[in-house]
Amino acid sequence: MTDLPIAADIVETANAQARADHEADYAALGEKLARRGVDVEAVTAKVVDFAVAVPSWGVGTGGTRFARFPGGGEPRGIFEKLDDCAVIHQLTRATPAVSLHIPWDKADPAALKEKAASLGITFDAMNSNTFQDHPDDPNQPLSYKYGSLSHTDPAVREQAIAHNVETIEIGQAIGSKALTVWIGDGSNFPGQSDLGRAFDRYLDSMKAIAARLPADWRIFSEHKMYEPAFYSTVVQDWGTSLMTAQELGSQAFCLVDLGHHAPNVNIEQIVTRLIRAGKLGGFHFNDSKYGDDDLDSGSIDPFRLFLVFNELVGAGSTLDRLSPAYMIDQSHNVTDPIESLIRSANEIRRAYAQALLVDRAGLAAFQEANDAMMASETLKSAFRLDVEPILAEARRRAGGAIDPVAAYRASGYRAGVAAERPASKSGGGGIV
Amino acid sequence: MTDLPIAADIVETANAQARADHEADYAALGEKLARRGVDVEAVTAKVVDFAVAVPSWGVGTGGTRFARFPGGGEPRGIFEKLDDCAVIHQLTRATPAVSLHIPWDKADPAALKEKAASLGITFDAMNSNTFQDHPDDPNQPLSYKYGSLSHTDPAVREQAIAHNVETIEIGQAIGSKALTVWIGDGSNFPGQSDLGRAFDRYLDSMKAIAARLPADWRIFSEHKMYEPAFYSTVVQDWGTSLMTAQELGSQAFCLVDLGHHAPNVNIEQIVTRLIRAGKLGGFHFNDSKYGDDDLDSGSIDPFRLFLVFNELVGAGSTLDRLSPAYMIDQSHNVTDPIESLIRSANEIRRAYAQALLVDRAGLAAFQEANDAMMASETLKSAFRLDVEPILAEARRRAGGAIDPVAAYRASGYRAGVAAERPASKSGGGGIV
Amino acid sequence: MTDLPIAADIVETANAQARADHEADYAALGEKLARRGVDVEAVTAKVVDFAVAVPSWGVGTGGTRFARFPGGGEPRGIFEKLDDCAVIHQLTRATPAVSLHIPWDKADPAALKEKAASLGITFDAMNSNTFQDHPDDPNQPLSYKYGSLSHTDPAVREQAIAHNVETIEIGQAIGSKALTVWIGDGSNFPGQSDLGRAFDRYLDSMKAIAARLPADWRIFSEHKMYEPAFYSTVVQDWGTSLMTAQELGSQAFCLVDLGHHAPNVNIEQIVTRLIRAGKLGGFHFNDSKYGDDDLDSGSIDPFRLFLVFNELVGAGSTLDRLSPAYMIDQSHNVTDPIESLIRSANEIRRAYAQALLVDRAGLAAFQEANDAMMASETLKSAFRLDVEPILAEARRRAGGAIDPVAAYRASGYRAGVAAERPASKSGGGGIV
Amino acid sequence: MTDLPIAADIVETANAQARADHEADYAALGEKLARRGVDVEAVTAKVVDFAVAVPSWGVGTGGTRFARFPGGGEPRGIFEKLDDCAVIHQLTRATPAVSLHIPWDKADPAALKEKAASLGITFDAMNSNTFQDHPDDPNQPLSYKYGSLSHTDPAVREQAIAHNVETIEIGQAIGSKALTVWIGDGSNFPGQSDLGRAFDRYLDSMKAIAARLPADWRIFSEHKMYEPAFYSTVVQDWGTSLMTAQELGSQAFCLVDLGHHAPNVNIEQIVTRLIRAGKLGGFHFNDSKYGDDDLDSGSIDPFRLFLVFNELVGAGSTLDRLSPAYMIDQSHNVTDPIESLIRSANEIRRAYAQALLVDRAGLAAFQEANDAMMASETLKSAFRLDVEPILAEARRRAGGAIDPVAAYRASGYRAGVAAERPASKSGGGGIV
Repeated sequence: MTDLPIAADIVETANAQARADHEADYAALGEKLARRGVDVEAVTAKVVDFAVAVPSWGVGTGGTRFARFPGGGEPRGIFEKLDDCAVIHQLTRATPAVSLHIPWDKADPAALKEKAASLGITFDAMNSNTFQDHPDDPNQPLSYKYGSLSHTDPAVREQAIAHNVETIEIGQAIGSKALTVWIGDGSNFPGQSDLGRAFDRYLDSMKAIAARLPADWRIFSEHKMYEPAFYSTVVQDWGTSLMTAQELGSQAFCLVDLGHHAPNVNIEQIVTRLIRAGKLGGFHFNDSKYGDDDLDSGSIDPFRLFLVFNELVGAGSTLDRLSPAYMIDQSHNVTDPIESLIRSANEIRRAYAQALLVDRAGLAAFQEANDAMMASETLKSAFRLDVEPILAEARRRAGGAIDPVAAYRASGYRAGVAAERPASKSGGGGIV
Repeated sequence: MTDLPIAADIVETANAQARADHEADYAALGEKLARRGVDVEAVTAKVVDFAVAVPSWGVGTGGTRFARFPGGGEPRGIFEKLDDCAVIHQLTRATPAVSLHIPWDKADPAALKEKAASLGITFDAMNSNTFQDHPDDPNQPLSYKYGSLSHTDPAVREQAIAHNVETIEIGQAIGSKALTVWIGDGSNFPGQSDLGRAFDRYLDSMKAIAARLPADWRIFSEHKMYEPAFYSTVVQDWGTSLMTAQELGSQAFCLVDLGHHAPNVNIEQIVTRLIRAGKLGGFHFNDSKYGDDDLDSGSIDPFRLFLVFNELVGAGSTLDRLSPAYMIDQSHNVTDPIESLIRSANEIRRAYAQALLVDRAGLAAFQEANDAMMASETLKSAFRLDVEPILAEARRRAGGAIDPVAAYRASGYRAGVAAERPASKSGGGGIV
Repeated sequence: MTDLPIAADIVETANAQARADHEADYAALGEKLARRGVDVEAVTAKVVDFAVAVPSWGVGTGGTRFARFPGGGEPRGIFEKLDDCAVIHQLTRATPAVSLHIPWDKADPAALKEKAASLGITFDAMNSNTFQDHPDDPNQPLSYKYGSLSHTDPAVREQAIAHNVETIEIGQAIGSKALTVWIGDGSNFPGQSDLGRAFDRYLDSMKAIAARLPADWRIFSEHKMYEPAFYSTVVQDWGTSLMTAQELGSQAFCLVDLGHHAPNVNIEQIVTRLIRAGKLGGFHFNDSKYGDDDLDSGSIDPFRLFLVFNELVGAGSTLDRLSPAYMIDQSHNVTDPIESLIRSANEIRRAYAQALLVDRAGLAAFQEANDAMMASETLKSAFRLDVEPILAEARRRAGGAIDPVAAYRASGYRAGVAAERPASKSGGGGIV
Repeated sequence: MTDLPIAADIVETANAQARADHEADYAALGEKLARRGVDVEAVTAKVVDFAVAVPSWGVGTGGTRFARFPGGGEPRGIFEKLDDCAVIHQLTRATPAVSLHIPWDKADPAALKEKAASLGITFDAMNSNTFQDHPDDPNQPLSYKYGSLSHTDPAVREQAIAHNVETIEIGQAIGSKALTVWIGDGSNFPGQSDLGRAFDRYLDSMKAIAARLPADWRIFSEHKMYEPAFYSTVVQDWGTSLMTAQELGSQAFCLVDLGHHAPNVNIEQIVTRLIRAGKLGGFHFNDSKYGDDDLDSGSIDPFRLFLVFNELVGAGSTLDRLSPAYMIDQSHNVTDPIESLIRSANEIRRAYAQALLVDRAGLAAFQEANDAMMASETLKSAFRLDVEPILAEARRRAGGAIDPVAAYRASGYRAGVAAERPASKSGGGGIV
């Protein structure tokens, strides 16, 4: 029996208040869809089954190099982070798993498993961290200032490899099945790094890690255009990520973070190419307008998020075989992180639900006939549907909240933890 | 004996005027390099050997969708284009080969060979054209409005394949050894095209073309981010181009056009990745600030061009095995196209000469030591060298002009052809 | 009594078929809004009143510098263009005015007025054209290859000024009240043009035009980042456009084309700044993913279009005083232009309707309290509303079609004009 | 008599070693220029006079939101920062003034003046800081999480205004004559902030600050596209900055940071527009490839830096009247900050020297004649000149080092301060 962080009656009360309007909306949408020959219940059932992992680090307030402005009740360690993550899942019923970051979340695996079990959640892909120094981690005494897995010094590479292996081991102990490797390695000036040799070193290191991967695990290579490196980044785009996954073999896949691309890039097409290459491993969901802004999913360009899901749903059984890992990766600088993660999980499901509602047979026929107008309108008409009633019903049926942010606010959870957890200090980022 | 388009004495007179200054500059640079332990003669010799192909279409005035403003003396067909190309080579001694575009340059192969031989030039990679309709080409009656090699209609795909095969055949007859395939296929609206199936059809078509490739030929896949398609492009980036070359096998390579990337992309790193993948096939050189602006090489960001050549020179024998095809691909809207191609050939050689002057042992040592300052300054100090005397000397030794634009202007060539060739009409582009 | 291009019974039949579903949808939406305290009828009434002008040139098939692929039944002149424009208005009841382009649309003003009256439409802002040569226009014999209003040669500037004055005169004769000036002036290479003097010359020319402006007219300065010029553009952004409008005085305003900005730019904020400066003159609506793609409004980023309208609606009475001119400016390369303009008019009204549905008091309160979550959700929840029933009802009430694309297709209009109007030729754009 | 941080004999020894080569290079360049009719001495004299300020914060190691990797001997406070700044000036003789950041550099003004005087340096524009919280500053207890000068809460605005006034007062006491205001105010989500009202509040606050400005001071408004705000930024571009300076009046000007623009923007044109508006106040020099990367000036796109100086030199006496403030603003993450600032000061002078060498009469004539080829080559040929001998000679004559990075390394300064100053801790940035 799980120990829910929010009292059940609070959710029930909130749902009771929202119920009449919700039922009217759900019924009206059901009728509208029925007129199009769509069974709303089938869609709702699929949405109930769709889950996305939350990142342990996402429940703390994020910041920029200029400043971090913490909110109240910041979690002081992984156990308090799991509490916060459990709130999100309790209210959304969409985020049953948490993705850990090592060494930030290092703790006794048995205690982690027990805590998670008590909260009714599990662990998703593990994340290693070699983009920062960890002077307090006895296993990582050497600096990553000039790189990690691609460093010119073999000792630093060995340390970074060992850290990844340790991350796998922790993951094994808590039931994870995948390792996501994102490195900040790169250079700030032309000439600083040999672009070719750096990649060779990275590949060698990744092979050493992959050699230690359990048979039922996957390893994800995550690319990023820039930041923290500002001239070249070793794994700078999906092409390099694909080369990596190809070299590493059948357990290696590419992870797509929506904010890690060049301006104007068509991300949904990259998703489709990786599906064809059999190498789509998963997602880090977020939204962005400029760079890797790490904003709430769907907050800047909701149509783009829908188009990604349109490719996923359209891939059908091919996608099922790949079974990509869906994870949120955001930085919550001005909102309550729990609220942002609740909203983001909903937005991701919204895009999924809208993609389910695309008339695929009609779309295919218009595409075949080069009827650009009707093909694009077929897609747009699914996006235009206000599927909030489906999302709310999916939450409600699974035991969550019809309006999860309202229920969260009603619960007083934030005030409660703020009273228990000492305020963390405001501070600058990389600016000194 | 070749029939040079510009009288030899004009070049000689121009060189005689420029000679004293040139010799002083060359001697001063030689001394400076000698103090660094570099033999200027060795560099000059390599520059003499470095050639880049010019595009037949480049000698006509280009335009935008808004307008085309022709200059005087526009070439009326491939034979006049070859005359213009020969002027460029005569003065630069850097552009011994011409890249043809079919069906624009379709003509009797024997006549083409004879004409080229008389001008002392040869033919480089062939270019097919399925991004336009060719209502007057009996072999291409069907419209490419909705695509060519990736069209939903197999009849259109067959036509496009046959056109490519015909282009190979013409190339074989005139001594070419490579086919560059660039298609404009894509879509303008989300939903218009199935992103995955369009790529599958493209790959099938490319395989059919590759199956008809002579054993000593290469086929180049050229990617482009956008334009003429404005939502998705089938071969949108180097990742898709690499997947294509991998599927097609050992005769297939990727061609990099410097203007076909997303904003801010690190192009030199892509070049290095393709070298590692064994798939760098060649270049379309030009420069750009916004999109595929097709400006004169090195005119907007000369340091970027240098960085590309730094990767090429740095790849050493690996590059020699790949032997990439160097070609210019520009649109000359406001300059005399001959002058722009002369200048561009020089700029490309300039970047090559500067890259030759990088202290590679020093650079490698600084990189190994993570001395970012000295590594980047090592590169920058080579770029800062004013190598114009080397370029001029390389031209002069091979029989070209010390100052080729000045010699060209002195020759009165443009006025001469303007008197012979009727003025072409100014007009709008895609604007109606 | 107007002479509608599509028989009234066709529209009636189409509406009859769509009516039952439409009424159910409209009623359901009305109920939903009523529960939020919103009167759907008030919104519908405002939508009925919202009009956007169509561009005469938009009813022809557009193209790129690579190719133009014409559709069937292309209009041969301004009178046929007006017929096509009238179809759009008949079905949408959203586009009562047409924006003309001189000299393309030059014709006897009386005949133009009579034709428009017969079709029930009027004329909006006039557009001059000095970005192309017009060798057949006796008033514009000089070339604009190197600029028009900013040309170094005073004779060319005089010609361009005179052309704008002529455009005003034509506009006066047909009832227009504004002149939109967009020039392609700029340069392709650093150094080609003196950036400061070019702007001075432009300002002088604009002042000369403004001096000829009737007292009840406005003049719009339209900026564009690049294309056709690829290094510098004289009026490159809203800052330069604002300086222009400030210099020209009280009749001068800035026109915002949604596709004329740098990547990632926040366009809605520019709109708000121009409102504050008292200089927002109007819009050219379209959508884009890369450059000035000129795609159908709302087809790429519908949320962005909504955010622009959110600023407009939010400006309230300040906006009413400015009374900006709403115009569509698109290039229809792969669709039937009439269908694209129908859809775009609807999308623009959709964004307007959604913006009307924003809970402004709630939004302001959340903003004041820095409740970023609820403020952004307040906006998003209005965007998520499927307001198609309101748009359909607004069309229906004004005599248009519930589903205007379906009615258009049912009418056979395109096939009809294709039978009358000779096919125009496929061709390249600026590529030769 | 100043107390130089590096012993004079170290510089003398280094210069003695470099002298022979330097003299040969300077003589050769002098001869080359003389052949073009240019007196190298006149250029050298101007370079000697050209100064650029260094930022106090620039001598500490910077970082990103992901991590900060400090180097050895980090300065612990403003007095040690001034020591480091003095090293840069001693070796380059290009950076006689330091720009302070309050409250970071808050100290007794008399002590600051005395210290600076002892080092032979002075103080340039002051920088206020309201983009971070300063919980230890008794004058700034309120949080800037949701903005500062544009905050919805008048109390926060008052605090931010008072902080700026205090910064002016400190500046007055130490001889500064300008205040640079950069705020991070903006929003992360559409709807979070009212875009118009936020600007109104900002303007009101700036007016309150300007009202407190001494009569001989200037106030600089600095725009930035994004970061730390990721959806909207209150002063997002030069258009808004210009509106600000116009509202504030004759003491207000715009400051251009080279890294604060949208991708692909033509920065040199903005500089020229601000010159025409009479509002160019100064620069923050740095270089970037992606966003506000804050890399060493000229390290990514040296031609762009040259083009900015081409506009400045070309503006002649108009610029002299504006007398813009030249400052460096960079983040040194992987280099010794002193070395990066030495190099950057040189690069800025390099661009200035190259711009001085442009044949302006020739350029103007080619521009007037629309000879795009020769106009652009005129500019390029100045950029291609290797002016390092002029820069070295300018340093040498003023008492600096021929090769300042080499002299710095020979001095052992970094090892010396590293022995005295305790190591600062590596750490994450905004990532928790």
